[in-house]
Amino acid sequence: MGALIQEFNDYRQRMNEVILSKNNLVMKRLWNLDTNTYDAGALSVQTKEMLGLVASMVLRCDDCIKYHLGKCHEQGVTTEQLYEVFAVANIVGGTIVIPHTRRAAEYWEELIASR
Amino acid sequence: MGALIQEFNDYRQRMNEVILSKNNLVMKRLWNLDTNTYDAGALSVQTKEMLGLVASMVLRCDDCIKYHLGKCHEQGVTTEQLYEVFAVANIVGGTIVIPHTRRAAEYWEELIASR
Amino acid sequence: MGALIQEFNDYRQRMNEVILSKNNLVMKRLWNLDTNTYDAGALSVQTKEMLGLVASMVLRCDDCIKYHLGKCHEQGVTTEQLYEVFAVANIVGGTIVIPHTRRAAEYWEELIASR
Amino acid sequence: MGALIQEFNDYRQRMNEVILSKNNLVMKRLWNLDTNTYDAGALSVQTKEMLGLVASMVLRCDDCIKYHLGKCHEQGVTTEQLYEVFAVANIVGGTIVIPHTRRAAEYWEELIASR
Amino acid sequence: MGALIQEFNDYRQRMNEVILSKNNLVMKRLWNLDTNTYDAGALSVQTKEMLGLVASMVLRCDDCIKYHLGKCHEQGVTTEQLYEVFAVANIVGGTIVIPHTRRAAEYWEELIASR
Amino acid sequence: MGALIQEFNDYRQRMNEVILSKNNLVMKRLWNLDTNTYDAGALSVQTKEMLGLVASMVLRCDDCIKYHLGKCHEQGVTTEQLYEVFAVANIVGGTIVIPHTRRAAEYWEELIASR
Repeated sequence: MGALIQEFNDYRQRMNEVILSKNNLVMKRLWNLDTNTYDAGALSVQTKEMLGLVASMVLRCDDCIKYHLGKCHEQGVTTEQLYEVFAVANIVGGTIVIPHTRRAAEYWEELIASR
Repeated sequence: MGALIQEFNDYRQRMNEVILSKNNLVMKRLWNLDTNTYDAGALSVQTKEMLGLVASMVLRCDDCIKYHLGKCHEQGVTTEQLYEVFAVANIVGGTIVIPHTRRAAEYWEELIASR
Repeated sequence: MGALIQEFNDYRQRMNEVILSKNNLVMKRLWNLDTNTYDAGALSVQTKEMLGLVASMVLRCDDCIKYHLGKCHEQGVTTEQLYEVFAVANIVGGTIVIPHTRRAAEYWEELIASR
Repeated sequence: MGALIQEFNDYRQRMNEVILSKNNLVMKRLWNLDTNTYDAGALSVQTKEMLGLVASMVLRCDDCIKYHLGKCHEQGVTTEQLYEVFAVANIVGGTIVIPHTRRAAEYWEELIASR
Repeated sequence: MGALIQEFNDYRQRMNEVILSKNNLVMKRLWNLDTNTYDAGALSVQTKEMLGLVASMVLRCDDCIKYHLGKCHEQGVTTEQLYEVFAVANIVGGTIVIPHTRRAAEYWEELIASR
Repeated sequence: MGALIQEFNDYRQRMNEVILSKNNLVMKRLWNLDTNTYDAGALSVQTKEMLGLVASMVLRCDDCIKYHLGKCHEQGVTTEQLYEVFAVANIVGGTIVIPHTRRAAEYWEELIASR
């Protein structure tokens, strides 16, 4: 597994445990709901993960982008498809999305290399 | 055609003409590029329009939402699918997306009634 | 009841019914969770509603602001306290919060007059 | 004076009076400071007003945009210069800035007609 | 003092000195005003710091979050209260607030350990 | 060249090559258009770069800020002028812009030292 992927996953798991240990019910239920949101329904998991990705990109949340990139990779999104998601994000959100696209591109290369 | 749809289309066309009459090349080229972004490619037009919609929702741009709702309707997105896009937008973007979801729901009802 | 309050409540109720009628489970559960978030806990309802208000102000969501203004009014927040919430929102979020503060001030006057 | 200009100025003045009547010192001092920010210094008033305009556009604050459009007009910004500010805002902020650009263009036409 | 706290404080102090050395009056006065905003008034300092925290969380400003976490800690906010602030921020601002909540949780653990 | 400048330039160039190698036409054309936006026209390059900077600051995009700081430096913007741009950004965008102003100030010191 690439270094960026490892670091992201480790920190995420470690801090999620800290947060959940405080037993705030709203936080716990929001996280469950977050998981349900991307379950297959009228739209496929693949489509929903691309929706989650483009939303994360225009809101410029690097960790959210990494999370959805990992899921898109698992769901078989191709590099060509991914860059079309990037294009929508950059056109809708403007050039301020470019630095996040750079980091997304770097993370995607690691995901592909880790296959 | 419903009143909201008519009003949106009329104002949009009228002001686009004003803007384009000023011959700013960057604006013109950005608008052309915006159109190209949603052309069929590795992703279908339908998927791209849903991506444009969710991005517009989390960025809370009512007019952008209306535009992409119109396109989603043309592309045959079902109400069930649409509400799954709404769900992603509300989970990623939080409850501040709810008022925009209300206006989106109202506009969608008009689109369905206009068929 | 003032005209702004009536219009806000009517539209909100009408569109919430449209949205809930579509039976999207994520939307329903998010709305329940939203309600729970402001229940009394380690913090009072009054404090939580002021937190919801300041968050809505810096995110510049007029309808969210109206909703929390109504709740703050119910919870006995005074005008002096309210304007200290406004001050935090304007300092943290900058002068782009001012137009929303104007509309918030107008709505608050109606809430006070409606007592 | 055009109808949009009149409405904007009237509402702004009326609500500013409500807000200032509450004597919140932070709000008062922030508003004074806001005025000072655009005074001539190492940069001209004209340049500062264009800076205020582009910032308001990418943050998508219609009332802030109207305010700075009025000031840009007073400072002799030409239509060609203005549309170059619009271009920067649309490229940096993306197509979500377009609906705000439409409203800005409409307001600018009124400002020109009011000369 | 924990490493994150030390690093945040050191960098903040060092760069504040650079900025203030340039004698820009607007910046100086804004910073003074920022301090005044959180002074005790109709609302307690503790409440105001929680308002500043939730505003910083939904606007996703990690350094602002750290600053207000430090102040909340000084003001005796409990972990249970803090997580209720986190809950409001995550519900209002959506799952894009989660990564910032992780970093906030990490910083809070350091603050508690530093007592 | 200072360490921050070197690191920013190297990463930017390396990832731009990755992104461009994927041949997504929308991305390529957006980047060309981005360059054209700041060409001399009715406004000077210097003014346009300050517009790009203030827009990047209120949108809180550190890498975009660095890019425009480099360009402002090339265009002969003085430190006094620069801090007036900072002032507009902090007033319009609020205290959440302060941490980005700190990083901007640090980068500017490197640019000056590199002359």
